[in-house]
Amino acid sequence: MSPGADVIVVGAGLAGLVAARRLVEAGRSVRVLEARDRVGGRTLNHVLDDGQVVEAGGQFVGPTQDHVLGLADELGVATFPANSHGDTVYVHGSRSRRFRGDIPPDRLALPDIALATARLARASGEVAVAAPWEHPDADRLDAQSLATWLRRGSVGAGGVELIDTLLGSAFGAPASEASALFGLAYVAGAGDETFPGALDRMIGVTGGAQESRVVGGSQLISQRMAETLGDAVTLGAPVRRIEHHATGVTVTTEAGSWDADQVIVTAPPHLAAEIEWSPLLPAHQDALFRRMTFGTLMKCEAIYERPFWREDGLSGQGVFRGGSSPVCSMFDNTPPSGAPGILMGFVGGAGWRTWAPRSARERGGAVLRSFARVVGPAALAPAGYFEKDWTAERWTRGGPSAVLGPGVLTSLGRWRDRPFGRVHWAGAEHSDYWNGYMDGAVRSGETAARAVIAQSGGPS
Amino acid sequence: MSPGADVIVVGAGLAGLVAARRLVEAGRSVRVLEARDRVGGRTLNHVLDDGQVVEAGGQFVGPTQDHVLGLADELGVATFPANSHGDTVYVHGSRSRRFRGDIPPDRLALPDIALATARLARASGEVAVAAPWEHPDADRLDAQSLATWLRRGSVGAGGVELIDTLLGSAFGAPASEASALFGLAYVAGAGDETFPGALDRMIGVTGGAQESRVVGGSQLISQRMAETLGDAVTLGAPVRRIEHHATGVTVTTEAGSWDADQVIVTAPPHLAAEIEWSPLLPAHQDALFRRMTFGTLMKCEAIYERPFWREDGLSGQGVFRGGSSPVCSMFDNTPPSGAPGILMGFVGGAGWRTWAPRSARERGGAVLRSFARVVGPAALAPAGYFEKDWTAERWTRGGPSAVLGPGVLTSLGRWRDRPFGRVHWAGAEHSDYWNGYMDGAVRSGETAARAVIAQSGGPS
Repeated sequence: MSPGADVIVVGAGLAGLVAARRLVEAGRSVRVLEARDRVGGRTLNHVLDDGQVVEAGGQFVGPTQDHVLGLADELGVATFPANSHGDTVYVHGSRSRRFRGDIPPDRLALPDIALATARLARASGEVAVAAPWEHPDADRLDAQSLATWLRRGSVGAGGVELIDTLLGSAFGAPASEASALFGLAYVAGAGDETFPGALDRMIGVTGGAQESRVVGGSQLISQRMAETLGDAVTLGAPVRRIEHHATGVTVTTEAGSWDADQVIVTAPPHLAAEIEWSPLLPAHQDALFRRMTFGTLMKCEAIYERPFWREDGLSGQGVFRGGSSPVCSMFDNTPPSGAPGILMGFVGGAGWRTWAPRSARERGGAVLRSFARVVGPAALAPAGYFEKDWTAERWTRGGPSAVLGPGVLTSLGRWRDRPFGRVHWAGAEHSDYWNGYMDGAVRSGETAARAVIAQSGGPS
Repeated sequence: MSPGADVIVVGAGLAGLVAARRLVEAGRSVRVLEARDRVGGRTLNHVLDDGQVVEAGGQFVGPTQDHVLGLADELGVATFPANSHGDTVYVHGSRSRRFRGDIPPDRLALPDIALATARLARASGEVAVAAPWEHPDADRLDAQSLATWLRRGSVGAGGVELIDTLLGSAFGAPASEASALFGLAYVAGAGDETFPGALDRMIGVTGGAQESRVVGGSQLISQRMAETLGDAVTLGAPVRRIEHHATGVTVTTEAGSWDADQVIVTAPPHLAAEIEWSPLLPAHQDALFRRMTFGTLMKCEAIYERPFWREDGLSGQGVFRGGSSPVCSMFDNTPPSGAPGILMGFVGGAGWRTWAPRSARERGGAVLRSFARVVGPAALAPAGYFEKDWTAERWTRGGPSAVLGPGVLTSLGRWRDRPFGRVHWAGAEHSDYWNGYMDGAVRSGETAARAVIAQSGGPS
């Protein structure tokens, strides 16, 4: 006999830990099995020389993300506003221009951008987040790439190129890799049951998903939950096999086997498909999970004595259109104390494809030159620099989350959250709202815990 | 110390076995590790009650497939012409119409089909099979789905729908899931260095890729090679880990570990990504392999006392347009002896998505009704019936081969065949010509063997 628990949770990221927390609150015994030697999944604090932290993974929270905000509050974890004072800089070709707000001041592309964002807003408003395939025009929307859809309604390439930049960090993939229906559903999910999703809420700082940050770093939320769960969390235990038998489930890891009545798997879907399942995962669910391909994304951060750009009236935020810069968007990532100054750039989608295989030195130089286009030449001499490539992480292999290509959502999307026997699914990819975000992860974990509790009746 | 060999070949399908054969011929010691308890990979003979065989997997060969044909010849395996006598039947809505040739007699859709096939022929002729991303318009072609590309040049939906039917069995996926550039490269690869690829060679029987069959079943080719290799082939040994170290590679399976100087991995790319790699697979190669999603395909075959349709002047071949039938295309799969009569239908792409999750009884009934639309009501009372769903096979999880969605080929395609340290790649997905076919598998195995021999110098 293997040691047991009522419920085994695979993965100690936000989804898994909040599921475990809710199950324990409901009187269930829980075992959380985590492949890594740490908790937090795609949230990861980077410790600075002075002991302060800055995030190398998911970090921003904003309005309508009440699930992650509520959880932080419950755990005594505070948030603070991301820096939004000063001008943002729009970099296109050889020009850098200062502006305010979320939409760059590109006179030539502006009509395109206005048209594209208006179309996105209108069309995403027609998509039901929980069942995009029920859209009257679902088949047509799912048969084309988001790039095709954007181009069809645009005068020139400007709108597509800029939306691609904005998606570079949200998807870690160009608009060509996403189905139009998936893209619309994603925007429709940038909200909640009360406030419908909106593109500006997705891409914006003030009033948007980049509005706030977590004091102590976003990984702290998971760390606090893990503390409460104590030795119910087993680290360094990659799950290799999940076996249904007559009376329960056996989960086999590299660090031993555990038995349970039910299991919640929170691994990224493309990694969940790799587990040795007995019996096999239903073919449709396997086919879907393998098609929930993760984007390709890395974060590059430079550390300076102080956030010198603020003195120049700059927010530290930058938007890069076109392919010459490795960075697609950048932010001021300075800790709440105000020093050191930190600039963070996303290298995602097309930029990652080009720059990730190059040497760290070559890439780092190009990233700093990108930063300099926004805040001036002082960016070229940081006191420190670090990168985190999420595609190179064994237990993520991509970032930030899953992007569904054409044809997948309409033919296989219904299988996303369907329980497989005693196995339930959670993780940021298993949420209708804020899919791929920390809030989606928390939502999915809470939903899965409720489903397990409902299925198993009263406390054992 | 683990037992060793000069070269370990992962996978005992056509690619792996031919690679092993060529290496042994060149004086190398070889160990072939196969996850299944049989050789042949995606070729699989189904033994009939009377001892004759019929294929449940890949089976057809045709002109320009000289690599698999040459190998069969070398092994003393004969081929015979697939049945092409008589009329093919085109099923659309409530109508069934007899015709000859490869292009169905749909008067309304015909202009579309003519246009679509002419455009495909012209555009695929401009794609270099070994480097589709070098096409002057590669980015635009790769940013759209093949469905979008087909629709743009068509008058109505007829052409797209029919091409979708034809691709249903070739891709196991609708045209919406494929990038237009991938689709064009795929057609361009339906040929060889002398005869450029062509759509009619891909979809045709006489003069096409469905022209001939293998006496004794296509799996016989692999079985003959395995006989020669003897105990160099280890069955039931799923590879779990591949580790580079200073002087070679260690391959760990569920049946033990082996050391080698070099390794050839022939597993489907999406399964190769699942192996525990040390060091990790390069992120770009991992990202590509995970995006080389396999189609979804099953074969359904009904057995009759004799091929009664031949007496009615029917070839047993059928083409089904539109979504109501589970079958997208069907063939006369009678053994060369002429009896029993066997009809084989592909349930692929959209048809698989709808029909695979239903009960075997419900699906089988619908398949037989599809057959009856082509050969008459006698099809409803077979003496036997069997199915093979390749998506439910643990060591394939899809069929027939990989379909690349938009955006992948241009940004990641270059990584497909790139060796990773001492590891080389082969398998049907690693061939420029006849990618996804038995011929592509043989080509890739021969290419990998040559690369290994070239890299390691003379015999050890």
